[in-house]
Amino acid sequence: MGKGEQTRTAILDRALELSRTVGLDGVTIGVLADALNLSKSGLFAHFQSKEKLQLEILEYAAAEFTELVFVPALKKPRGIPRIRALFDHWLAWGGKAGGCPFIHAAVEFDDQPGPVRDQLVATQAQLIDALRKSAQIAKDDGQFQKNLDTEQFAYEFHAILLGYHYNARLLRDTRAELRARKALDALIERARA
Amino acid sequence: MGKGEQTRTAILDRALELSRTVGLDGVTIGVLADALNLSKSGLFAHFQSKEKLQLEILEYAAAEFTELVFVPALKKPRGIPRIRALFDHWLAWGGKAGGCPFIHAAVEFDDQPGPVRDQLVATQAQLIDALRKSAQIAKDDGQFQKNLDTEQFAYEFHAILLGYHYNARLLRDTRAELRARKALDALIERARA
Repeated sequence: MGKGEQTRTAILDRALELSRTVGLDGVTIGVLADALNLSKSGLFAHFQSKEKLQLEILEYAAAEFTELVFVPALKKPRGIPRIRALFDHWLAWGGKAGGCPFIHAAVEFDDQPGPVRDQLVATQAQLIDALRKSAQIAKDDGQFQKNLDTEQFAYEFHAILLGYHYNARLLRDTRAELRARKALDALIERARA
Repeated sequence: MGKGEQTRTAILDRALELSRTVGLDGVTIGVLADALNLSKSGLFAHFQSKEKLQLEILEYAAAEFTELVFVPALKKPRGIPRIRALFDHWLAWGGKAGGCPFIHAAVEFDDQPGPVRDQLVATQAQLIDALRKSAQIAKDDGQFQKNLDTEQFAYEFHAILLGYHYNARLLRDTRAELRARKALDALIERARA
């Protein structure tokens, strides 16, 4: 990585961290400049506009999600062990300080048409499709029932994570993780061949 | 209702509607004054501060939720029919233009300590406890299993609604409602005596 690239990565890293708490719309060039002790004009030179910055934060978040959630899960055996690993790492991703940046951005951008919303939707659809595929693999390998609705499985898996996020972050419910794991166990048991 | 009370209700109604789209933090006195074609000073006279306005919006939202979700559900027979009615009306509440104001406020305030967060948490804990009670009634009446974990039932019921909101509002998935209903059916079947 060259020096310019390193600076850019450091900026995006801090911007993503901030967006977990204040949302993508909260990460203005001014807020980010303050957080990094950089000049606003310097940041403008890097990102040109708030929208470009938001798009880059989303891209950076998707890369981090892949690295922290998908890559370790792919090292686990196919099927149920991999599905459980996805859940564990996804839970940890959403449990980081400030919470899940995608869940925050979802309510900010669900009614804001434009490139940021489009990119967020594309990323989220990909994540949910990757979940569906992990269930499909479990089905192909005979771990899950032959007639399992894998889209439904992915929907319910994701809903459990949303429930965890809500209970852990807003309600500070110390049993949120336990509840989420119990729900996942039940989902897997229902899917099992 | 006196004229002052009527005006206040009309303001809160519009403020709640706005907060569904822009969040509680987005409903500044300035934004609300523009939306209602009122003067900022007039609105200040009604609500004194942004925080007081946010607290009143939350109170108004809780009252509307009771009226639109709990009251009609309580007219249904105890147990499973009432649980299904709660789900139907809750789905409709979250499906309104702009989405669920509580889900939006949850990500805004999960890291903002203070009276608004406290009130949001109290309201949400009440809603989830009401869900738990509806499952307890089904259990007491022998419709649900004697050993059912009613807190877990409430957690999963609520998670399905969060999944619906995410899929319907962000992803504009036309099958979101179908998925949510299928998940509820499975949850009820697992709980049934």
